[in-house]
Amino acid sequence: MASAINLLDKFTGFHETWSPRVIAEMNDYQFKVVRIHGEFVWHRHDDTDEVFLVVEGRMTIELRDGIVHLAAGEMYVVPKGVEHRPVARSECKVLLVEPRGVVNTGDAGGAYTAPNDVWI
Amino acid sequence: MASAINLLDKFTGFHETWSPRVIAEMNDYQFKVVRIHGEFVWHRHDDTDEVFLVVEGRMTIELRDGIVHLAAGEMYVVPKGVEHRPVARSECKVLLVEPRGVVNTGDAGGAYTAPNDVWI
Repeated sequence: MASAINLLDKFTGFHETWSPRVIAEMNDYQFKVVRIHGEFVWHRHDDTDEVFLVVEGRMTIELRDGIVHLAAGEMYVVPKGVEHRPVARSECKVLLVEPRGVVNTGDAGGAYTAPNDVWI
Repeated sequence: MASAINLLDKFTGFHETWSPRVIAEMNDYQFKVVRIHGEFVWHRHDDTDEVFLVVEGRMTIELRDGIVHLAAGEMYVVPKGVEHRPVARSECKVLLVEPRGVVNTGDAGGAYTAPNDVWI
């Protein structure tokens, strides 16, 4: 039976930060919800743009030559190959849109690297 | 200068219904805002899935074998090739995500067919 996907409801099912959960697929792209809090690692995705859409809270996306402030209902497309660092002073709920298979830490790897393709 | 895209702000720039406006691109996909009100035409997109995410208001997506009710903060992925009809009793503000070049009326054509690739 076809039914709506409620973004905030999906967040009730997990509490880890920096650990995206897939909620939907559109062709070979995935929609993921992620809780972010604190400072992530600088990284880039050499093969794809990446969309951040804030569902609740506030975050910033630091770029080497600027900074993007995002509140609920706001989005930003990080261009392919551009280094960025997501930061949130308080926990922020975010919807990501990107191709299936994109790893959260991109080229950087390290401790923040989350398992990929985990559905909720 | 990199800056956020505010979804509700984008809606203040146009008032036509059933006439999507592109607000961002991610690779070869587009994010579009659209005001919907009333009953659209039954149609399908043979080459792609299509995402509806409600920004404000309520809508339904009628399917031949069911109906999906969407409120603000809820999304649904219409699978490729599946006939659907968007309906809204009151005006509803929606974010669409789909590949560049998708025409709003799909295979159906007709009076509701909107110009494609119009940015706001």
